[in-house]
Amino acid sequence: MKPLSSLHHLIQALRRLPGVGPKSAQRIAYHMLQHDREGAVQLSSALSEAVATVRHCSRCNTFTESDVCETCRDEERDASLLCVTETPADQMMIEQTLTFKGYYFVLMGNLSPLNGIGPKEICFEKLIARATDGIVKEVILATSFNNEGEATAHYISEMLKARGLYVTRLARGVPVGAELEYVDIGTIARAFLDRRTT
Amino acid sequence: MKPLSSLHHLIQALRRLPGVGPKSAQRIAYHMLQHDREGAVQLSSALSEAVATVRHCSRCNTFTESDVCETCRDEERDASLLCVTETPADQMMIEQTLTFKGYYFVLMGNLSPLNGIGPKEICFEKLIARATDGIVKEVILATSFNNEGEATAHYISEMLKARGLYVTRLARGVPVGAELEYVDIGTIARAFLDRRTT
Ligand SMILES: [Zn+2]
Ligand SMILES: [Zn+2]
Repeated sequence: MKPLSSLHHLIQALRRLPGVGPKSAQRIAYHMLQHDREGAVQLSSALSEAVATVRHCSRCNTFTESDVCETCRDEERDASLLCVTETPADQMMIEQTLTFKGYYFVLMGNLSPLNGIGPKEICFEKLIARATDGIVKEVILATSFNNEGEATAHYISEMLKARGLYVTRLARGVPVGAELEYVDIGTIARAFLDRRTT
Repeated sequence: MKPLSSLHHLIQALRRLPGVGPKSAQRIAYHMLQHDREGAVQLSSALSEAVATVRHCSRCNTFTESDVCETCRDEERDASLLCVTETPADQMMIEQTLTFKGYYFVLMGNLSPLNGIGPKEICFEKLIARATDGIVKEVILATSFNNEGEATAHYISEMLKARGLYVTRLARGVPVGAELEYVDIGTIARAFLDRRTT
């Protein structure tokens, strides 16, 4: 009993999705063909449309359908401030806080030498060119506070400070609304070190 | 900052995959567009090809690209035996044991009234027609041994016995190679009840 070629191709293609192993690829394929062919058709065209239209903003590197994204085209922003994020999702979170009115640079990842992701893969040259346009004064690093995000922030910070830029990092501390009892010790220690006068 | 329409469509379409929530749909979309556009194109065409070519075997209900699947066209098999499975994957497992040389009927699911899956959704009429062809003598129920699989087996068994068929169920018992200490009590109890002379 040989597997069907088109079903087999579908299962193989689904396995390329991040986090999808052989068992779940099979389960997804059966589900779509049995219960949601409309969804399968929709996903097929959404994939080919996105591949055809989505590219990187020539200024901030985020996903866009034009040469320069909507945010970079917004002339109301403060051009002396540049915030560096890992993903478009992180950028959207910061936008929602309404606390930042500068421009962004989206790395689309993190330095991760073990996974073969070096400065080239995260568009480092593009970031340097963007940050040294002569107008940017402060670069705010908003990468994650995990190991890879911290290493990325450190690396970028060194490179940009060497080029005369003022580089800052989002503050670490006790989350707003948190009870101390439930906050991890490392965070409390950091909040002590970074304590501020009131 | 509005999300891009084609990226937004892709994230929405990915959410229709079983087990994919909003966060992972976003993660998958970013990953495919950033690191695996070739995989995205491949998945797009695999989906549309599968939707166009995969249908149900008119005899056994499994996925096939022809009217009658390869297994049903195999004339070397014993036409008096019909094995009922939940999925094509279960059928393939049984084939690999090399212990069964009859034909199959694939339900493509389980009775699950709470999820709106009744006898109609699992092609029950088609099973009855297939099993009462006058040639099938024994129907072997190989649905899962969880609650839904047992309920499905029970329901099918009653219907087919009422039509004069001999209906059997795969044996339950201690798994081959298992140490009793690590087998659950329900399984041991069943193995006692179903004990055989040696
Ligand atoms: Zn931009
Ligand atoms: Zn068939």
